Amino acid sequence: GIGAVTVSAVAYTVASQKHTKFDARSLAELDERTKREKGINEQSPMRLRMEKFIREQQKAIVSALEEVDGKKFRADEWTRPNGGGGLSCVLQEGNVFEKAGVNISVVYGTLPKAAMEKMRANHKTLDADVEQLDFYALGLSMVLHPSNPMAPTVHLNYRYFETMRPDGTSQAWWFGGGSDLTPSYLFDEDAVHFHKTLKEACDKHDKDYYPRFKKWCDDYFSNKHRNESRGVGGIFFDDLDETVADADNTFAFVQDCLKSFLPSYLPIINKRKDMPFTAKEKEWQQVRRGRYVEFNLVHDRGTAFGLNVPGSRVESILMSLPLTASWRYMYEPEPKTREHRLVEVLREPKEWV
Amino acid sequence: GIGAVTVSAVAYTVASQKHTKFDARSLAELDERTKREKGINEQSPMRLRMEKFIREQQKAIVSALEEVDGKKFRADEWTRPNGGGGLSCVLQEGNVFEKAGVNISVVYGTLPKAAMEKMRANHKTLDADVEQLDFYALGLSMVLHPSNPMAPTVHLNYRYFETMRPDGTSQAWWFGGGSDLTPSYLFDEDAVHFHKTLKEACDKHDKDYYPRFKKWCDDYFSNKHRNESRGVGGIFFDDLDETVADADNTFAFVQDCLKSFLPSYLPIINKRKDMPFTAKEKEWQQVRRGRYVEFNLVHDRGTAFGLNVPGSRVESILMSLPLTASWRYMYEPEPKTREHRLVEVLREPKEWV
Repeated sequence: GIGAVTVSAVAYTVASQKHTKFDARSLAELDERTKREKGINEQSPMRLRMEKFIREQQKAIVSALEEVDGKKFRADEWTRPNGGGGLSCVLQEGNVFEKAGVNISVVYGTLPKAAMEKMRANHKTLDADVEQLDFYALGLSMVLHPSNPMAPTVHLNYRYFETMRPDGTSQAWWFGGGSDLTPSYLFDEDAVHFHKTLKEACDKHDKDYYPRFKKWCDDYFSNKHRNESRGVGGIFFDDLDETVADADNTFAFVQDCLKSFLPSYLPIINKRKDMPFTAKEKEWQQVRRGRYVEFNLVHDRGTAFGLNVPGSRVESILMSLPLTASWRYMYEPEPKTREHRLVEVLREPKEWV
Repeated sequence: GIGAVTVSAVAYTVASQKHTKFDARSLAELDERTKREKGINEQSPMRLRMEKFIREQQKAIVSALEEVDGKKFRADEWTRPNGGGGLSCVLQEGNVFEKAGVNISVVYGTLPKAAMEKMRANHKTLDADVEQLDFYALGLSMVLHPSNPMAPTVHLNYRYFETMRPDGTSQAWWFGGGSDLTPSYLFDEDAVHFHKTLKEACDKHDKDYYPRFKKWCDDYFSNKHRNESRGVGGIFFDDLDETVADADNTFAFVQDCLKSFLPSYLPIINKRKDMPFTAKEKEWQQVRRGRYVEFNLVHDRGTAFGLNVPGSRVESILMSLPLTASWRYMYEPEPKTREHRLVEVLREPKEWV
């Protein structure tokens, strides 16, 4: 198991010098004190409520996946010098999962200009004229790569951001997240079940969410250089701020989405994990893993953001990459094969529900 | 063999409509006519002389590598609709090389704004105010990934660029290139031989070239997110334009560099290709291949440029990726092992000659 996740998991070194302005480190100190002295309830700042929630979910997911696999996750707690840290849970070469990572990270930091500009592309409200910006970011990220080529890879990420004015008050906040499925061999019923479960979570909050976030997912998880989606999608959203709904309602929506993960994926992995497969099918899976790596390293904003934050934990960010991947020159599936049909679907995303 | 490389290899569809301005397609037509009617000599435009030279070199390199491997390259000629094309030679699952690609590409194109901005970071002279820019680019790119973990991966690229004013006259030109070595197991004598051969080619032209381009190589081929070089370096240069030397002299320099490739690498591959190795050593090689993929997809400007050019041939660009690669979470070599020493050298590039 992942062990007791205590507040001390994100403890940081308290610097001895006085601060002349309110900075990321001061906020980290304040949050630690709040958690210690008052605990977390519905009146707590959203960042602390979200942190508590994703820590609980990480535990629940890790424990459910350990039951599927039969092997335990390795858990690494880590801290960042100026506040924040994380808990990376990784299962490698398991019975079912070739590599599975379930990661929480909490960052109190300062955005350098390069990272800020990437972020500003989608957050026009961010002040353009400052040299740097204090921010708070936390999220739960998960990628599961099963060994069996019939069992799909799945990805999930739910996150919360705040940026601060120099006096420490919140300048902007937003939620982002989503979950998507990447099969090497497509079983339509799996895609339908996955999408249906997500749609139900969305529909409880806003009937427009699923169609909007389903399309956003198809648009985002696209290997544009190959004109091919990464997988059969799911939902993806970003920038859910006060222009969309108030923080409490959006938090409730995010909670329902995240809680829908196990029901969306467990039936699929249980059905596929022990299916027979050939060496040729394993080879195709490896080529599809190569495409997964291409998306994550070339296009994924989260990965680029993470690698740009100074002092980020590279092993936790790149835990999303598969254990093994392959690039075969001009590897085109034969017409009318299952491999060919997958690529056709990836070229033109379908409506699954 | 790669067969006769004829001028028709880069033939393109001649459009029937009249052009209202001189554009990339018109230049491609003009170049085809020049080659057909006059042949190529020392008075020909530099782009045609460079093209002739790299086509000869591609043939020589492919044929030398076929002799090492015992297996033949597959050769794919391809064309771009608006002029240009290439010849991709790939050997996959050979006796010595797991994957080897020797690729020529000739592009008559128009830079979209995104690609132009990437390029302008290093070419301040490029006009910032235009929406797009006609350009000509050609190059020989090569990556060889041997199967044996004792045998190093090697990369080479020599290229020539021109940008054109709307009237078709050359606005700017420059050469770029280099070659670098990436071992999984470091044999100092290999690194020394490789660097020494490159230094000799450089020294014939300018004693400052080798130290400058050696450092440039170390700075460029760096997985900055891991604070680790990709390999033990070699030389790298870009932007060699009229501020550095005249075109004829720089072309002569580029010729000597490219011709030094076979003498720099053949003795190494012949010494290492049949060495014994363990499964554990093969695993380490796979992890290092993962780092190679990280550099190429996250940091390499050439790859980003290629993937940004509309209609580019993705299979030729990503031919640089290894057949197989691996990402193991927290895979740290034990102190005092050969694996550990490699990482130490990659953290602090050495002077090899």
